[in-house]
Amino acid sequence: MSDELTGPEHYEEGGAEIEGDMRSRGVITLLSDFGRDDHYVAVMKGVILEINSDVHIVDVTHSVSPYDIMGGAVLLGAAYRFFPKGTIHVAVVDPGVGGERQALLAATENYFFVGPDNGLLSYVFEDPAFLWVRELQTVEFFLQKVSSTFHGRDVFAPVAGYLSTGESPDKFGPLLLEPVTLDSVRGRVEQSGTIFGEVIFVDSFGNLITNIDTSVFWEGETKSEEDGGRNFPVIEIGGASIRGIGEFYQEATPGKLGAHFNSWPLLEIFLPQGSASEKLGLEKGAPVKIKFESES
Amino acid sequence: MSDELTGPEHYEEGGAEIEGDMRSRGVITLLSDFGRDDHYVAVMKGVILEINSDVHIVDVTHSVSPYDIMGGAVLLGAAYRFFPKGTIHVAVVDPGVGGERQALLAATENYFFVGPDNGLLSYVFEDPAFLWVRELQTVEFFLQKVSSTFHGRDVFAPVAGYLSTGESPDKFGPLLLEPVTLDSVRGRVEQSGTIFGEVIFVDSFGNLITNIDTSVFWEGETKSEEDGGRNFPVIEIGGASIRGIGEFYQEATPGKLGAHFNSWPLLEIFLPQGSASEKLGLEKGAPVKIKFESES
Amino acid sequence: MSDELTGPEHYEEGGAEIEGDMRSRGVITLLSDFGRDDHYVAVMKGVILEINSDVHIVDVTHSVSPYDIMGGAVLLGAAYRFFPKGTIHVAVVDPGVGGERQALLAATENYFFVGPDNGLLSYVFEDPAFLWVRELQTVEFFLQKVSSTFHGRDVFAPVAGYLSTGESPDKFGPLLLEPVTLDSVRGRVEQSGTIFGEVIFVDSFGNLITNIDTSVFWEGETKSEEDGGRNFPVIEIGGASIRGIGEFYQEATPGKLGAHFNSWPLLEIFLPQGSASEKLGLEKGAPVKIKFESES
Repeated sequence: MSDELTGPEHYEEGGAEIEGDMRSRGVITLLSDFGRDDHYVAVMKGVILEINSDVHIVDVTHSVSPYDIMGGAVLLGAAYRFFPKGTIHVAVVDPGVGGERQALLAATENYFFVGPDNGLLSYVFEDPAFLWVRELQTVEFFLQKVSSTFHGRDVFAPVAGYLSTGESPDKFGPLLLEPVTLDSVRGRVEQSGTIFGEVIFVDSFGNLITNIDTSVFWEGETKSEEDGGRNFPVIEIGGASIRGIGEFYQEATPGKLGAHFNSWPLLEIFLPQGSASEKLGLEKGAPVKIKFESES
Repeated sequence: MSDELTGPEHYEEGGAEIEGDMRSRGVITLLSDFGRDDHYVAVMKGVILEINSDVHIVDVTHSVSPYDIMGGAVLLGAAYRFFPKGTIHVAVVDPGVGGERQALLAATENYFFVGPDNGLLSYVFEDPAFLWVRELQTVEFFLQKVSSTFHGRDVFAPVAGYLSTGESPDKFGPLLLEPVTLDSVRGRVEQSGTIFGEVIFVDSFGNLITNIDTSVFWEGETKSEEDGGRNFPVIEIGGASIRGIGEFYQEATPGKLGAHFNSWPLLEIFLPQGSASEKLGLEKGAPVKIKFESES
Repeated sequence: MSDELTGPEHYEEGGAEIEGDMRSRGVITLLSDFGRDDHYVAVMKGVILEINSDVHIVDVTHSVSPYDIMGGAVLLGAAYRFFPKGTIHVAVVDPGVGGERQALLAATENYFFVGPDNGLLSYVFEDPAFLWVRELQTVEFFLQKVSSTFHGRDVFAPVAGYLSTGESPDKFGPLLLEPVTLDSVRGRVEQSGTIFGEVIFVDSFGNLITNIDTSVFWEGETKSEEDGGRNFPVIEIGGASIRGIGEFYQEATPGKLGAHFNSWPLLEIFLPQGSASEKLGLEKGAPVKIKFESES
């Protein structure tokens, strides 16, 4: 959780800062585990367009595995920064709907986020530009009759709609200091410099995406150098060893596993024109380790 | 079929009523069994945007099982009311394309519908706000060369496009008095109050959605009370008995089947955080029965 | 490749010709092999909307089989003509990303195309209205930091975005004379009139779409007539013989294979309300032959 969450002045400042030009573009994104086989996603769009027909609605994805909060958090985290300033990101992976979990409106310097308080926004809270998070309490911004099963339609969609029309964020509910966050949103570094992480996502090409980002990597490399001058990374995953981190898919030998920092930027294990997930027999949750050796 | 379909004055009135503000938002929705793997849906959008680029196009779903008219009717019926007044809903599940089935333009007080005359619009005709249905005959609103295989592109998309530009509905063709409707769009109630229905849709979470809506339920409960004062519902489905109808997914015990009226509102059988369809081994078409007992 | 690619005057003329009204509608389409399970497609849309929020973005499909350039070429070829004049079509099936393949901007009299130089635009180069193709070299139109793995986001999306704002095509890079084209984009005709083709696409209904279009068919029929007056087509595919080419799905007998020119227009083998692909056990690449016989 960012330190910036501590001072009320900051919230106000943040809120004010956003007020200015954050609404100009009118983009709302949707992410969920609803799939596209049913009508659920469409209904959310209908509710939004009823409130504000002057917006772009973009699907991030609706193929998050049912109830997989971490999977949704990863995809949201990977996608949101590429949208115009002021974009409102709606995320719904919500096994606790109808229960006691809260509903949230969060903001970074550039974006708004609407979704359940269950860790789905974990990567938002990790963003250095994170500003504040509010609890959605103002029922005037919900559909008249809120069901117990479909807050995507009854709460999150209309809140995004009203927010996109220029309603002030503080009208939606009070600040919340301790939203739920997920463990293992990022890898950890031992004192010796060894990095421990895990596979947090397997994309549709079979690439294994880990929770080791470049900042964790530099931290490990620095500690390793302090510990004895080793700086050549060796990745251990599923019984395989990958020596070095490349820059291009094309650099790797066909049929041979490679590793690079992908476009998120997170460490990704890939098999050129094949599926690393299949070759290694690994799924989400598989451990990965980076040790540093002397180049020789 | 609604009684409102009987008087021509009514049609005129209806038509006039709609004229006013029904076009302001410019939303066209698409529902089909085309899937998203091919280019068919995109081509329909291209045709619409060629005619009117000032509309929102929203996909309801394109994952209706191939040629499953009932499945398409259910999803359309569940979705359409959540869109802004004036939305034009285009639905294409069309095994009879190229044959003798007619093409339709229908209207309720709030929406227009474009699609084949094969029962796909059954739930529209059941809507108390249903106004009229016309046969699409004016070829000026079709693509120049109508193929025998793709009326989604050649007939339904351009008709929706021209309608969205403000063309008067009566220009598209004459009124039709007896459009095709599907049997079993809703459950039936015995004199004793017992309700008989069936599973009409299995959503992607494995929830079993039945054709028993709240109005059928109240009818059964009322008759049962008249018949002896029983009013506690017991649902029988696939060999299982579910006592009572809850309000929240969360109310039910994990691992134990529950029942509630979902957001459509139709009776839905669910397994908290699991698949009721898998647990009961049931698919679409499975019978469901509600009996009323004395609470004890 | 079209002859029109030969004179530099023509390019200039072409470029100028387009300048006029080709931008009015503001439609950008996206086609890729990214699937919709990840965030990749959404990120491309975010990048485009950041540059120009006044466009429609339409997905052609993202279900091209991974790295299947021919499949992508076919679907793009089938879809692009149905969009408004001026539409910018972005296509990304890009196994060579990060390697030495070039990136392209192409134009026909009505459309722009952005994608890798690997044959994905083959059907564009076959279009009689094809004008020119340029190599994307102006890095000012790319994202600031171009990754080695995701040119869809870093190169193709921003180029489409800037092009949609009215940037002149010649600013994006120099003309390219020999872009990569795929073999077998269309069937071939023997001197005797026999036509040899192959299945280039199996759609989600199991229909077998071949690379035999109407122009190849007329060429074969003409030669066959010159060779002895035979003009009744017999299609041989997967051990089956189909006599005659119908016009309607409905014309064919249920359970019996039929053939017609579909809406692309390419020769398509279908099984009424069934899957021709399953019945014949055929996939993409299967050979197809048309012989002409005397009608008897």
